[in-house]
Amino acid sequence: MNKGLLIVVSAPSGCGKGTILEEVLKDKNYYYSVSLTTRKPREGEIDGVNYCFVSNDDFEKLISENRMLEYAEYCNNYYGTRNDIIEEMRENGRDVILEIEVQGALNVMKKCPDAISIFVLPPSVKELERRLRKRGTESDDVINQRLAKAIEEMNSADKYNYIVVNNALEDAIADFKAVIKAEKLKADYAKEILDEVIKNA
Amino acid sequence: MNKGLLIVVSAPSGCGKGTILEEVLKDKNYYYSVSLTTRKPREGEIDGVNYCFVSNDDFEKLISENRMLEYAEYCNNYYGTRNDIIEEMRENGRDVILEIEVQGALNVMKKCPDAISIFVLPPSVKELERRLRKRGTESDDVINQRLAKAIEEMNSADKYNYIVVNNALEDAIADFKAVIKAEKLKADYAKEILDEVIKNA
Repeated sequence: MNKGLLIVVSAPSGCGKGTILEEVLKDKNYYYSVSLTTRKPREGEIDGVNYCFVSNDDFEKLISENRMLEYAEYCNNYYGTRNDIIEEMRENGRDVILEIEVQGALNVMKKCPDAISIFVLPPSVKELERRLRKRGTESDDVINQRLAKAIEEMNSADKYNYIVVNNALEDAIADFKAVIKAEKLKADYAKEILDEVIKNA
Repeated sequence: MNKGLLIVVSAPSGCGKGTILEEVLKDKNYYYSVSLTTRKPREGEIDGVNYCFVSNDDFEKLISENRMLEYAEYCNNYYGTRNDIIEEMRENGRDVILEIEVQGALNVMKKCPDAISIFVLPPSVKELERRLRKRGTESDDVINQRLAKAIEEMNSADKYNYIVVNNALEDAIADFKAVIKAEKLKADYAKEILDEVIKNA
């Protein structure tokens, strides 16, 4: 059996990444990697869904045992991704989706050269701004901060393997799926298939 | 406008490559590159469709003017691919499909590192043999020669970027199209899109 892919996905908030992933994850062969954090759960957050909430001691134990793929400290809390679970899933042939911000993604790419990285873009910054304002829940200041952050993140998009522009949702989902399909058709990845075909002579 | 892709396709005879390409080429953005040859047309062959038939002098002129992407001599006849037409089509944004045997394909890959190469495989050698025999037009000797040649060619399949197994025709066509789609989503290729999105801030 082929090892599953490690698919790293980043996007500025408001790009519809969540909706794309929701659709993609209907295929149960995917395993969605949930991040670990030491911060306390906020109201409504579910352990194992939004984050896996762990103690500071447990997090530092995982670090010392070299079981974190990447982690960062932010406002006195740890955030990170466990390596051992991802590896286990991949060994079982499941494709792992890692939704992660840019800096973490770049770290993962360095550590796992076989990771497939996808950056989801809005059709334009104007459209992103319109989408963020449409929510109507945030002040102008917060929206402007988000936009500035989005533009900063988008400047790293060319460091990813693939770019998916979320203009029409269906097209973006099709693009996303085409990337995964094509990755599995790469001669390196399809080596077992190749051996199989030639062997059955 | 983005430069068109150069897509190099090889397959042993009997793999259904022709049927796949026929379906793909319904999209008129593709340009199918017709090979040049100095051999005389056989009955039923149409100039510009099966081959572009040219004189020995003309072929050698093209070689001397460095206008051949690749060529070979076989049974005292030249066979080859013109570079200038391919480049012109690509500059106009059209994706060029080059259906070519293994040795020529490997030469093109060397000369054009940006070429996308796809090898079409039968589901198994047994199935290929069944397909070849089903035609019922050739002797056992000829079929055995073709099989031996097919296996030899398949041993180079891992030098291609992608492997498409033609088990069910529809799946093979979908695979083929996914490869092209994904190639256009690669960050290098999609650089203009990226610039466009960021620029429209």
